[in-house]
Amino acid sequence: MDKTVAVQLGQRSYDVHIGTGVLAELGQLVASLTGVTSAVVISDSNVAEIYAPRALELLAAADVPARLITFPAGESNKKLSTYCDVLDQLLASPHIDRQAVIVALGGGVTGDLAGFAAASVLRGVRWVQCPTTLLAAVDASVGGKTGVDHETGKNLIGAFHQPVGVLMDVDTLGTLPASELGNGLAECVKHGVIRDESLLTFIEDNATKIATASPDVMTELIARNVAIKAHVVSADEREAGERAHLNFGHTMGHALELYFGYDNLPHGQAVSLGMVAACRMAVGRKLISQADADRVRSLLTKLHLPVTCSPFSALDIWGIMQRDKKTTAGKVRMILPTKLGAVDIFNDITDQSVADALEAISE
Amino acid sequence: MDKTVAVQLGQRSYDVHIGTGVLAELGQLVASLTGVTSAVVISDSNVAEIYAPRALELLAAADVPARLITFPAGESNKKLSTYCDVLDQLLASPHIDRQAVIVALGGGVTGDLAGFAAASVLRGVRWVQCPTTLLAAVDASVGGKTGVDHETGKNLIGAFHQPVGVLMDVDTLGTLPASELGNGLAECVKHGVIRDESLLTFIEDNATKIATASPDVMTELIARNVAIKAHVVSADEREAGERAHLNFGHTMGHALELYFGYDNLPHGQAVSLGMVAACRMAVGRKLISQADADRVRSLLTKLHLPVTCSPFSALDIWGIMQRDKKTTAGKVRMILPTKLGAVDIFNDITDQSVADALEAISE
Repeated sequence: MDKTVAVQLGQRSYDVHIGTGVLAELGQLVASLTGVTSAVVISDSNVAEIYAPRALELLAAADVPARLITFPAGESNKKLSTYCDVLDQLLASPHIDRQAVIVALGGGVTGDLAGFAAASVLRGVRWVQCPTTLLAAVDASVGGKTGVDHETGKNLIGAFHQPVGVLMDVDTLGTLPASELGNGLAECVKHGVIRDESLLTFIEDNATKIATASPDVMTELIARNVAIKAHVVSADEREAGERAHLNFGHTMGHALELYFGYDNLPHGQAVSLGMVAACRMAVGRKLISQADADRVRSLLTKLHLPVTCSPFSALDIWGIMQRDKKTTAGKVRMILPTKLGAVDIFNDITDQSVADALEAISE
Repeated sequence: MDKTVAVQLGQRSYDVHIGTGVLAELGQLVASLTGVTSAVVISDSNVAEIYAPRALELLAAADVPARLITFPAGESNKKLSTYCDVLDQLLASPHIDRQAVIVALGGGVTGDLAGFAAASVLRGVRWVQCPTTLLAAVDASVGGKTGVDHETGKNLIGAFHQPVGVLMDVDTLGTLPASELGNGLAECVKHGVIRDESLLTFIEDNATKIATASPDVMTELIARNVAIKAHVVSADEREAGERAHLNFGHTMGHALELYFGYDNLPHGQAVSLGMVAACRMAVGRKLISQADADRVRSLLTKLHLPVTCSPFSALDIWGIMQRDKKTTAGKVRMILPTKLGAVDIFNDITDQSVADALEAISE
């Protein structure tokens, strides 16, 4: 039961193909691109070991000359120096030409890093994304945000660069550790809260099958999430308005990640905590009921996502939030649910309300 | 006698304002941008000393908080490590926000480097270009090409990112060394050859006033050149077709630059040599007359641009050309004049024809 979701972005539109074994289409997909001369697979050291030989074989079988570039696995390697290393390899003489295609094979870090390399090498070449994690599938694979972190914050350097196609092979999810699956599930819950209450029900009803990465349920789950994100991104490609809704749970989440260190608090866990805190804030403002907030919290717990964390300084978190790249002139903007399935943007965030909200996750 | 040339690129359109003393408008221009929060002036160590205090004063007078980032002057510093240093400074805590504006104050290297930083910091902020050289004015200020060099070739990393405005103060040209002026004049001759024979006449007639950077003549010269380049770029922003015409003189020019080293052969001189060689090739193919080629050669000589250079290996130059980023699958593409004022794209370039053409500059 494959599914294809179209991301509608005018000339930059592309399809996300989801299902069992769809990685097998990589060769055909790349070979079908106009004028393609070669492919470069970019992958981290862990994923390269498992899937790169297969990807290179598929490209070779489709008569696309291909080579592999790897970088050390880990969120802490999503940084400028790794980007420079990848560029040095892409440009090693004789360097790739403008008709070459980059294949990002891996999780979120790989997609972000390889996508930024694709955006900037020779001022931009085409790229195909093959996510191997749920997080990359439901989040990074739609929207064309690429980039690297900086020591002063996440994703502070990068580009908007849409892939020409995405192949999401749900078989790769079977090899994921449970914690990594949980990272993606945090984004799925987010999509439910901001746009589709019935998605929350679907996740609640299928939590067991999701935990074992049952292919049919994962295909359905990913397709629903990609469709939601694609709809939001299509309406606002450059994040001028509606796309900000996707930051639900992320304003505090990013601050928590920076505070605890990217390697100590995985992105999905940070978002889970950020959503719990944001729901508390929404209850405080009487936007949603306590029962709504409890439902989100219970679902996150059911998915083995954290709803509380080790002690922290609320003042420091607030300070980090005020320096976030989405902040304008020190004015913090938060996305809060107005009911389950809808959110709005709030600019009147006070330090007191943040302190109150953070209490929800320090209990 | 100011002149304003509009670069028509839909939502990314902007004006190039040329004339005596127009730098004085910097404060107003930046302050008039929607929601602007602050400005960061980026300049090389030489230009910063002369013009940065003035730029910062102008911004302060317009109530725009501004700071200065400098990097070491010189073409050899247009590289990834300098780009990383500039980003580190832009992102030093508390880092700039998305409503900040970058001001590139300087020559071509500064525009390319600061423009790429603007394209990628926070996935893109607005930028204003204040060229201080003729080369930057007639070439880099139109078209939004930004980026840095790599040890394997020029401009191999970067982005298309249009500025929101360009202020070309011709008074800054008076402080330029004659050789630097010559660099820009090579691009002016190029524009004449590819689009406007009467521009060649204008340059021939005003060579003396150009040599002393007479403000009125320079304003007219720059406006005519910007208009030509703007017209080409508007028709083909992403360099899919017509924009390739701007590479006249550059295919061999870039190869010569790489062969001799960027610091030994300035860009304009390389382009001058590339044009002489390309004209020879065009004569060989009976596209233009020997008299046309001689006219271009004489004009370049009149402008103190080189038409011959030290001994080189034609085979090495050909090898470098085949690895140029604009090459597709090893197929070299050259832009050759079909008369003075018009060019076409030729894909059937043989090693023998390149060797013949290179003879023109080794005489």
